[in-house]
Amino acid sequence: MALYLIGLGLFDEKDITLRGLEFIKAADKVYMEYYTSLLQCDMRALEKLYGRKVIVADRELIEKGGENIVKEAKNYDVVILIIGDPMSATTHTQFLLDAHKQHVPVTIIHNASVLTAIGDTGLELYKFGKITSIVFPRKNQQVETYYDVIKQNRASGSHTLCLLDIAISSDVSDANFATQETAKQTKSNVARQQHRCMTVHEAINQLLAVEQQRKESVFTSDTLCVGCSRLGSPRQVIFAGAANVLLKKDFGDPPHCLIIPGKLHFVEEEALSLWNK
Amino acid sequence: MALYLIGLGLFDEKDITLRGLEFIKAADKVYMEYYTSLLQCDMRALEKLYGRKVIVADRELIEKGGENIVKEAKNYDVVILIIGDPMSATTHTQFLLDAHKQHVPVTIIHNASVLTAIGDTGLELYKFGKITSIVFPRKNQQVETYYDVIKQNRASGSHTLCLLDIAISSDVSDANFATQETAKQTKSNVARQQHRCMTVHEAINQLLAVEQQRKESVFTSDTLCVGCSRLGSPRQVIFAGAANVLLKKDFGDPPHCLIIPGKLHFVEEEALSLWNK
Repeated sequence: MALYLIGLGLFDEKDITLRGLEFIKAADKVYMEYYTSLLQCDMRALEKLYGRKVIVADRELIEKGGENIVKEAKNYDVVILIIGDPMSATTHTQFLLDAHKQHVPVTIIHNASVLTAIGDTGLELYKFGKITSIVFPRKNQQVETYYDVIKQNRASGSHTLCLLDIAISSDVSDANFATQETAKQTKSNVARQQHRCMTVHEAINQLLAVEQQRKESVFTSDTLCVGCSRLGSPRQVIFAGAANVLLKKDFGDPPHCLIIPGKLHFVEEEALSLWNK
Repeated sequence: MALYLIGLGLFDEKDITLRGLEFIKAADKVYMEYYTSLLQCDMRALEKLYGRKVIVADRELIEKGGENIVKEAKNYDVVILIIGDPMSATTHTQFLLDAHKQHVPVTIIHNASVLTAIGDTGLELYKFGKITSIVFPRKNQQVETYYDVIKQNRASGSHTLCLLDIAISSDVSDANFATQETAKQTKSNVARQQHRCMTVHEAINQLLAVEQQRKESVFTSDTLCVGCSRLGSPRQVIFAGAANVLLKKDFGDPPHCLIIPGKLHFVEEEALSLWNK
């Protein structure tokens, strides 16, 4: 018996690989990790294609119950579905370690990830530096790591991918929910299992606010940015332009991400010009 | 009519996604880009599953004929299959640009890439810096960019992924083919369409040779490395250890890659300890 970590890819039920689908159909139990990413299709479409009930695992089940799922995999074939690629935007290394301790074999089925789908922008993936997350301000927490990562990457000419926070409402300070944009957003989030996803606009505004305090000229309203939404889906949107120009663009539904390019090759420049209309 | 860039994933014919397979079956013509990566399965297995003839496109057809393929896509649905993810290890940005100029719509079907499969090592993908390629010495060319990238990444505590060269014999200076290891390698390369793939051992030896010249203590025989082969396949191998220890390990068939970790989190340390046996 074994544990299977299976990537779902980026958009809908058809992004599963043939190998992944075989393991799902043969499994005794199918969980889905659903708190670090956002499903872009209906869960029922997945269940229909698989012919299987999918048990949604929230943060508690994965983090506190991770060991229990591994124990279960001693006696059963247990699948955990992960949106995107299983070992990418959020690593699930703890599963590997727990499984190793309990002598449970693990099979990982990789799939597309936002970390590679950003290649659609025409930016060279070789030239990205460390990835960072821009997070909503949590109670009693001020995290500006992302500002320092962007600063460091810019210094070496590297591009920076900023993944944007996905929070459960209760995680996030209430003040943050008061903007009009958020009110609009919250409505569509009801259908999205209370996920609240940071938008490109929010990320830019948060970066500009940190810049106002730190004043290190890391991110200003003139900084070239590439904003993306729903990458890997047929409805993906990419805009490239100065931060204050992107604030006027409509990126639509989540998930969004934000790229701050470093030094550009001329082919990259030409590619970005496709996205500045 | 349109151009489809479709990722094959990392191992065999079953790594295609359901969406990718639909487009292949419906296409008028199916090419495969086959000079920047290595197919780990038999081409006939792909053709059988797809029920389609696959036309192998070498460097000349892709680089010089890229525009012709795009022109063809004005009147036909044309698929280009790409090992791994279409926009990752080698970007195919030129196709996007050519297609844009000729008003040909492009659909990209993402898939697993070595850039994310390295997550299997337990190293955090967020913490990788710029990626580099270690290349065989070409005639009249001495490229040591990789040494500088490793140096830069180490300074900021970032991990470095080194992709290892895949060359056609004639690309590479003959002296380089004289070692015993190469002779062994060349034999299996006949079945692999004359691809000559750099091994982890060759990469380490080349890094040590550059270190001998540059003497900047960027890469020594004590440097912690993670060597990987055939990532994303059921036959993948991962070893972690000092460079001189890895020189004694058998990594088997290509493709190989080499990671030089930066600053390790304790979970990463624990994960790497799984691979030092």
